[in-house]
Amino acid sequence: MKITILAPVALLGRSPSSAIDLTSSAFFGHDLRVQFLDQGPPSIEGAFDEALAVAEIVAKAVQAEAEGAQAVVIDCVLDPGLEAAREKVSIPVVGPGQAAMHLACLLADRFSIVTVLRALAPSLRRRAEVYGLASRLASVRAIDVPVLALLEGREACAAPLAREAVLAVENDGAEAIVLGCTGMAGLAAPVVDELRRRGLPRIPVIDPRNAALAVAAGLVGMELTHSRLTYPVPGVKAVTGCAGL
Amino acid sequence: MKITILAPVALLGRSPSSAIDLTSSAFFGHDLRVQFLDQGPPSIEGAFDEALAVAEIVAKAVQAEAEGAQAVVIDCVLDPGLEAAREKVSIPVVGPGQAAMHLACLLADRFSIVTVLRALAPSLRRRAEVYGLASRLASVRAIDVPVLALLEGREACAAPLAREAVLAVENDGAEAIVLGCTGMAGLAAPVVDELRRRGLPRIPVIDPRNAALAVAAGLVGMELTHSRLTYPVPGVKAVTGCAGL
Amino acid sequence: MKITILAPVALLGRSPSSAIDLTSSAFFGHDLRVQFLDQGPPSIEGAFDEALAVAEIVAKAVQAEAEGAQAVVIDCVLDPGLEAAREKVSIPVVGPGQAAMHLACLLADRFSIVTVLRALAPSLRRRAEVYGLASRLASVRAIDVPVLALLEGREACAAPLAREAVLAVENDGAEAIVLGCTGMAGLAAPVVDELRRRGLPRIPVIDPRNAALAVAAGLVGMELTHSRLTYPVPGVKAVTGCAGL
Amino acid sequence: MKITILAPVALLGRSPSSAIDLTSSAFFGHDLRVQFLDQGPPSIEGAFDEALAVAEIVAKAVQAEAEGAQAVVIDCVLDPGLEAAREKVSIPVVGPGQAAMHLACLLADRFSIVTVLRALAPSLRRRAEVYGLASRLASVRAIDVPVLALLEGREACAAPLAREAVLAVENDGAEAIVLGCTGMAGLAAPVVDELRRRGLPRIPVIDPRNAALAVAAGLVGMELTHSRLTYPVPGVKAVTGCAGL
Amino acid sequence: MKITILAPVALLGRSPSSAIDLTSSAFFGHDLRVQFLDQGPPSIEGAFDEALAVAEIVAKAVQAEAEGAQAVVIDCVLDPGLEAAREKVSIPVVGPGQAAMHLACLLADRFSIVTVLRALAPSLRRRAEVYGLASRLASVRAIDVPVLALLEGREACAAPLAREAVLAVENDGAEAIVLGCTGMAGLAAPVVDELRRRGLPRIPVIDPRNAALAVAAGLVGMELTHSRLTYPVPGVKAVTGCAGL
Amino acid sequence: MKITILAPVALLGRSPSSAIDLTSSAFFGHDLRVQFLDQGPPSIEGAFDEALAVAEIVAKAVQAEAEGAQAVVIDCVLDPGLEAAREKVSIPVVGPGQAAMHLACLLADRFSIVTVLRALAPSLRRRAEVYGLASRLASVRAIDVPVLALLEGREACAAPLAREAVLAVENDGAEAIVLGCTGMAGLAAPVVDELRRRGLPRIPVIDPRNAALAVAAGLVGMELTHSRLTYPVPGVKAVTGCAGL
Repeated sequence: MKITILAPVALLGRSPSSAIDLTSSAFFGHDLRVQFLDQGPPSIEGAFDEALAVAEIVAKAVQAEAEGAQAVVIDCVLDPGLEAAREKVSIPVVGPGQAAMHLACLLADRFSIVTVLRALAPSLRRRAEVYGLASRLASVRAIDVPVLALLEGREACAAPLAREAVLAVENDGAEAIVLGCTGMAGLAAPVVDELRRRGLPRIPVIDPRNAALAVAAGLVGMELTHSRLTYPVPGVKAVTGCAGL
Repeated sequence: MKITILAPVALLGRSPSSAIDLTSSAFFGHDLRVQFLDQGPPSIEGAFDEALAVAEIVAKAVQAEAEGAQAVVIDCVLDPGLEAAREKVSIPVVGPGQAAMHLACLLADRFSIVTVLRALAPSLRRRAEVYGLASRLASVRAIDVPVLALLEGREACAAPLAREAVLAVENDGAEAIVLGCTGMAGLAAPVVDELRRRGLPRIPVIDPRNAALAVAAGLVGMELTHSRLTYPVPGVKAVTGCAGL
Repeated sequence: MKITILAPVALLGRSPSSAIDLTSSAFFGHDLRVQFLDQGPPSIEGAFDEALAVAEIVAKAVQAEAEGAQAVVIDCVLDPGLEAAREKVSIPVVGPGQAAMHLACLLADRFSIVTVLRALAPSLRRRAEVYGLASRLASVRAIDVPVLALLEGREACAAPLAREAVLAVENDGAEAIVLGCTGMAGLAAPVVDELRRRGLPRIPVIDPRNAALAVAAGLVGMELTHSRLTYPVPGVKAVTGCAGL
Repeated sequence: MKITILAPVALLGRSPSSAIDLTSSAFFGHDLRVQFLDQGPPSIEGAFDEALAVAEIVAKAVQAEAEGAQAVVIDCVLDPGLEAAREKVSIPVVGPGQAAMHLACLLADRFSIVTVLRALAPSLRRRAEVYGLASRLASVRAIDVPVLALLEGREACAAPLAREAVLAVENDGAEAIVLGCTGMAGLAAPVVDELRRRGLPRIPVIDPRNAALAVAAGLVGMELTHSRLTYPVPGVKAVTGCAGL
Repeated sequence: MKITILAPVALLGRSPSSAIDLTSSAFFGHDLRVQFLDQGPPSIEGAFDEALAVAEIVAKAVQAEAEGAQAVVIDCVLDPGLEAAREKVSIPVVGPGQAAMHLACLLADRFSIVTVLRALAPSLRRRAEVYGLASRLASVRAIDVPVLALLEGREACAAPLAREAVLAVENDGAEAIVLGCTGMAGLAAPVVDELRRRGLPRIPVIDPRNAALAVAAGLVGMELTHSRLTYPVPGVKAVTGCAGL
Repeated sequence: MKITILAPVALLGRSPSSAIDLTSSAFFGHDLRVQFLDQGPPSIEGAFDEALAVAEIVAKAVQAEAEGAQAVVIDCVLDPGLEAAREKVSIPVVGPGQAAMHLACLLADRFSIVTVLRALAPSLRRRAEVYGLASRLASVRAIDVPVLALLEGREACAAPLAREAVLAVENDGAEAIVLGCTGMAGLAAPVVDELRRRGLPRIPVIDPRNAALAVAAGLVGMELTHSRLTYPVPGVKAVTGCAGL
């Protein structure tokens, strides 16, 4: 399957591999292509960052569909531009936030998200509301590490992630954990190990990018895509500026 | 009070007065200034149109604050860019959709929105969910007239609006009506007349722009603005492109 | 605008100014008139106190309307008699509890109420449920000071209010605070100062009377009032006793 | 058991037996005593009528407890004064609306209320919200007969009740019916017969007074009464007027 | 009244009186008959145990109806087999979990369940969701004593139950307590005593079996039973094995 | 991947291929094995049928895990025994009802289920409540064909399925359709064709077995399984009878 991982950030001189790490992806069998934005913010940490990126995200989703992608994953747990891109393209567009939250609900009755900065919490909670899963979201916790710092020292975050996960279980009632940033790729396993070491029963720790790839692969396999009643095709109108859309 | 009405559309050669009509505004006493986008879509009719406009909306909100505005109203019932603009500025930013829905709930137990096109319905319902008012939204109905056509023949829309409002009351359980487009300015009164003629008890018909102006004026009067816990100030990061933000 | 502030208490020998303090009102421009009950309880601190006052409240609302008031504010955060008065009069009747809770939701995703006595908590929570905002009410906290004591030493309450507000934010997830008694007039500003001193980000602290006055002024300005489908006119029936109604 | 049925209306010259009919009560074994108000409205058909009655209702509940009643049933499906009376007395106070709605939920997943006038619908829906059962209330329907007319010609109401019950099942998704007025005593059986004649599967039709008596008897039998955390004892304060309370 | 208490467990050599203690039942006036399963688990502590028992439970409910029982109480707070048995028989089938949760909501705005083992918590919470009462369930707490150990030393459990009840009130917002196992018969009174000793205001402590018997007696008295729209009669099909059904 | 499709029915002389048709499965690449019950009902059409099957279902799930299966799909949209099997085994156990409902919510804001008999509707709605998705379930509709009849004449059901799907969209607000029986395998495509012919915009029609297989494959690929906090391992106890468990 040809799936485009749409990184909703501009590289700004970084190397692609430092901005997105696919080595821990569970889906090597598929033909994954990574697409960055031409311009935009270097990371998405709230509604403002999303606003800077969404027009470009839609443009890149349109381009991916034109180039034969069978599905697009928007590589950020805030799912920026998800609804807009679905209106504009016909192939499945999958958000890691939505995919991971639904997956958590398939495995447990209540879940917490452990993310990078507290600033993402309101946006994540709004996402849970739009997805109809707010009653299952036990809490949003943060390790107080910005995305760019996380990307530079991912391994060091396993311990703080596990610490917050334990608090989510013991204080908030979580029965599963969603990693709250696609930049946390590869950290699910060490967090699981850490939780076991701390004596917790086995609970799912969900990597949001992998969750999105699993959903994307499933949808392509079943020839399913989003509803046109929920995501109607936009009317054709004269537009100025706006990422060439 | 100095309030900026931020029209989230590009004029694209239209005259400002054809794009936004303030003659029916209930708030002439205030110092209202209208600000259009430099580039963007000519109307907002779904998530895709929103995506094209939000970066510019935030930029214009920042500019309005810098120029001394005490509050900003984003002049569209979908409240595009509401969260992003609130993160970025400190003065109150008010969405007509949010203001009108809350006002409807202050006056009735259940309300319907009658909007321009069915395509806006999913976005409006998602807004109701994010605002915590989904249980009060009886239905979203549409008169099947695009925004630009509405602006060219507003009077002709009173009858279809009343017709859908009656159906909302009789079939869906609505006890108040929110006009689902700020382009419907001036139509609340004729719709109220029409409903009375059709024998309905008096029900509120809410103009969303006026609702937003009332909320904005109230907030400025009380020296209140949005919570920084809900809308945290974005971190400073290198960004490329994006409306000069 | 002529707005009647209906204090739902009997003076019982107190001076009007000791029972209700308007000096901090944000709405001096309006023609505010204060109306007390002829008989009733000296303060409203639960459902029983409300029961003693509601018939008189409706009678005074009817009288206010007859005397030309354009709106009535029932000056208690429990909104006693709100539905009954709306059924009986046509001008807007505004409850500070309802107005403040909706205003909080316009500015933040979750709010707490800090009130006088814990005894008010169940009534306040029921109000949030009737208003459809229970999912946004993070908690109800109390400073353990009866209304009459509060009125005699308002300044002393700023510190305990701030203390509970901090707990609401840190333990309960509140992102805005509603002052839970109209007798707390003038305390929003010192509480805001206190929260800043304690290092909290800026969060709204809402004075319920001012919120109600803002809503009342907005409704009068927009010529809106409550729905007759939600608050039907009572049928004419022989009644004995009952405050001359 | 000694249970006081507290009719929240003034007799106004009517005979007690015309105002309340106990012949169909399922609970003859108990020592039932009927208590009317000294003054108040002749029937309760909305929030205004409730406001006229609540102070007297609490006074009569206090009197019933003093005279040895083991429980009080407030004989109206709107449960007027329920919270206030519970704050003031220690014996169980039962509302037919609350009892019947919970009973309906014990027997079916969704229920409708068929009441006398449409004017009661908003109050009944608010009750369902306060009781946490709004998601189970399929609809409120009315037969358009005022309470006093119902009392004079009860038998004639079985057919219209059944008609609305059928619509509630077929259009609204109801799986049980709550009779929406205690004045409908004796009508459950004819409505059940009528539904069977119309080919519906067996569904419960619940008489609200009998539901309340069953709950009252159960509570007395188990020596249970309402929580003092939910219904705190009112503080002692000087009060003027107000039914001698 | 003839009511069958259906103990959903196999005796496995135990004496009936050690497996179920009726001495504290509030309903001696009724003709109570206890029926055990022929085969099954010795106690129900989760979904797996339920799975082992449900076919037998339905078989015994059918047998009880055939032998003239007027109602069946399934004697476990997880209400195993409740829906299945209701589909198969016409007499009321009552679950102690459902009865006790509704009763708690009739007496308080929020309740907690204190059960035997934490393992029951997810099943109890799912029950609250199916019954539409999840928003009223403050928490589920456990004393970490298996059912069989509880039955052997019931008195020793009053103190731990009270301890968890106090935590439910003080930390979780509970205003009533449901005992989370029918094996806790007789413990409501000592827990109430203990709570009083610890200074808590009077709150209801509900014995689930007694709650179920009260509901069963009320339903029989009112000639009410479950809805056939909610619990349709199963079609006749060839079946193999399965407890002779 | 080795996935066991656990058909929760007894063959009762039928050929396996008539009881379950895998030709339309989207997941031929996986190693699918079908396992029937030794005894039980021939089809699952309600809670009673489930009760007859659940013990055997758990037994077969245990056996599948012992024989090396990496995941189990319980092949019925009611997800019988889902929680019990998850408690007892460690490999993922997937329910087609849960998988299809979540998938529908990933593709649309509201969905309807079109099932075989109306008798399944209450059980399906309860499942939506337990899964936290009740607010997204627009309606449950039925084509009035028993499972065994469906299996004998699947093609004839495409038209009635499409008819109900259209009603779900037009009357109930559905924006996606879940086929409400795993026996409807192969019917999604003809229903999609039929909906297109009737002029509906493209909406997802979800085959529940394929949805479950997609979820199962995704979970195995990500090495995820259910939470032990939600599905605790049952304690070891002496049990009699019960499918050898």
